[in-house]
Amino acid sequence: MGNVTGTSGEAFPRAGSSGFETLGIDGVGLIGGSIAAAAKARSLCRRVLGFGRSAERLEAARDAGLIDDFSLDYRAASEVDLQICCLPVDRIPEAILQAAACMQPGGVVTDAGSVKGSICESIGSEPAPGVFFVGSHPLAGSEKQGFAHADADLFAGRTCVVTPGPGSDESATVRVTDYWQRLGSSVLVLSPAEHDRILARTSHMPHAVAAAVAAALCPADITFAASGFRDTTRIAAGDPALWTSILYANRVAVASELRSLVDRCQQFVSALESGQVEAVEHLLADGKRCRDAVGTNSV
Amino acid sequence: MGNVTGTSGEAFPRAGSSGFETLGIDGVGLIGGSIAAAAKARSLCRRVLGFGRSAERLEAARDAGLIDDFSLDYRAASEVDLQICCLPVDRIPEAILQAAACMQPGGVVTDAGSVKGSICESIGSEPAPGVFFVGSHPLAGSEKQGFAHADADLFAGRTCVVTPGPGSDESATVRVTDYWQRLGSSVLVLSPAEHDRILARTSHMPHAVAAAVAAALCPADITFAASGFRDTTRIAAGDPALWTSILYANRVAVASELRSLVDRCQQFVSALESGQVEAVEHLLADGKRCRDAVGTNSV
Repeated sequence: MGNVTGTSGEAFPRAGSSGFETLGIDGVGLIGGSIAAAAKARSLCRRVLGFGRSAERLEAARDAGLIDDFSLDYRAASEVDLQICCLPVDRIPEAILQAAACMQPGGVVTDAGSVKGSICESIGSEPAPGVFFVGSHPLAGSEKQGFAHADADLFAGRTCVVTPGPGSDESATVRVTDYWQRLGSSVLVLSPAEHDRILARTSHMPHAVAAAVAAALCPADITFAASGFRDTTRIAAGDPALWTSILYANRVAVASELRSLVDRCQQFVSALESGQVEAVEHLLADGKRCRDAVGTNSV
Repeated sequence: MGNVTGTSGEAFPRAGSSGFETLGIDGVGLIGGSIAAAAKARSLCRRVLGFGRSAERLEAARDAGLIDDFSLDYRAASEVDLQICCLPVDRIPEAILQAAACMQPGGVVTDAGSVKGSICESIGSEPAPGVFFVGSHPLAGSEKQGFAHADADLFAGRTCVVTPGPGSDESATVRVTDYWQRLGSSVLVLSPAEHDRILARTSHMPHAVAAAVAAALCPADITFAASGFRDTTRIAAGDPALWTSILYANRVAVASELRSLVDRCQQFVSALESGQVEAVEHLLADGKRCRDAVGTNSV
């Protein structure tokens, strides 16, 4: 465990207004750092403990005032009342099982992963005796990475999906929901499978398609890539390793959405090649109707 | 012909600094209106004549000071030295052939259409005796439509492609190139076919794909459409009729690019379904490499 700072904490209410005294953040990057910043800004806990693999980065996060203390060892999770795992999706199940095994009965665990089915299935609703897990997915983020860009308002006005399974502890679901609401988010409760089917359509399939569109570009084409191309492919600049784990963790729904997308592209090809101008316009009008329904405000 | 206003024009140099005395704009919308505004702001001509089908709208454009006079009849093109056709691509060839037939020998005609091969082929390099055509495509635009959003700086710092064919008049190519440069654009000279192959990759295929991605959305998904989805599908909000004529006019290259895109999407599906995680990451890394090369500045 790192140097203990801020643990006397008499300035904080004893258990924080959220009912959780000590918040554990596993992975103090943009999302984890923003949760820590928001919890402190809103006095939701008495103490924030950071977990991770790099003492150097955790020290820097502590020096920046985001966390009060840190540990490279999950045994420190024995002090944590609410653990939020903000790691890449392929590392979440193992990290949560290890942390939960060290927590006291009554502890609650959640995550911030973009895929929920495989994670919730691997972890179960009670990853250690008396320690309850409920999955979360805050629909917030940024191209920026790392705690240096942490923003206490990152979740304000955004949607957060909370995904209890059939065996989830009701009290844990209520407390996790309440926590995101206190961070400023609107919470939607969905099953893990429902979440994954929707996100395959709205996020995961579009990410793969943006990469496929971007890959069409020849180096000499760059001058011709105007704002339309730039917008359509912006998300393709995301971290390939991070997105590989997301697409793979939700592979059944993503593959299904990609097949539907391929069907629609092939309808364009058929209509263009057979001279069915009205069919081309119909396909474009379908897209416009759906896009217009979304509007221009960002979530 | 509408009321003649501004034709005394003694305040303008006799032939404009571009060497064209009277500029004709066919289709006074966002692009046509911006060309008119830029030509006036930069004193590139002595007089701007608008052509179109709606006397009401042309009167409004004249009242707004974008054009000096207008006509619903191409016979008025006998006064025009440089005619720029800013109509939807499916209406350009007929409109140019009609206007050119009324112009005096020595007149030059160009357009602002997003597709060049089929347009240049239909029109030829000399659409009327002594009247020369060279195609153009200014890579500038906006979601906004109509001359009310005309912007004298719309072309400043943007790329404009000029597409002479094998039979094009060299002097006309030089004069059209010079005109776009005087509007502030960087001009690239390409063959019509080369232009169309590149734009299929950077604009036309991405438009069809954005529509196909948008069409995946169910009405209940709207809450989950975060900034990634919004960016990826933004261009799908474009006018279906306008884009149908673009995709259809460039159908061979667009269908070919859509087939390649379908191939890449199917590679994602295969990699996901067969558990080849490295292949998924490789596909994403390909997209990221191409996208990173484009950068964030808009053209």
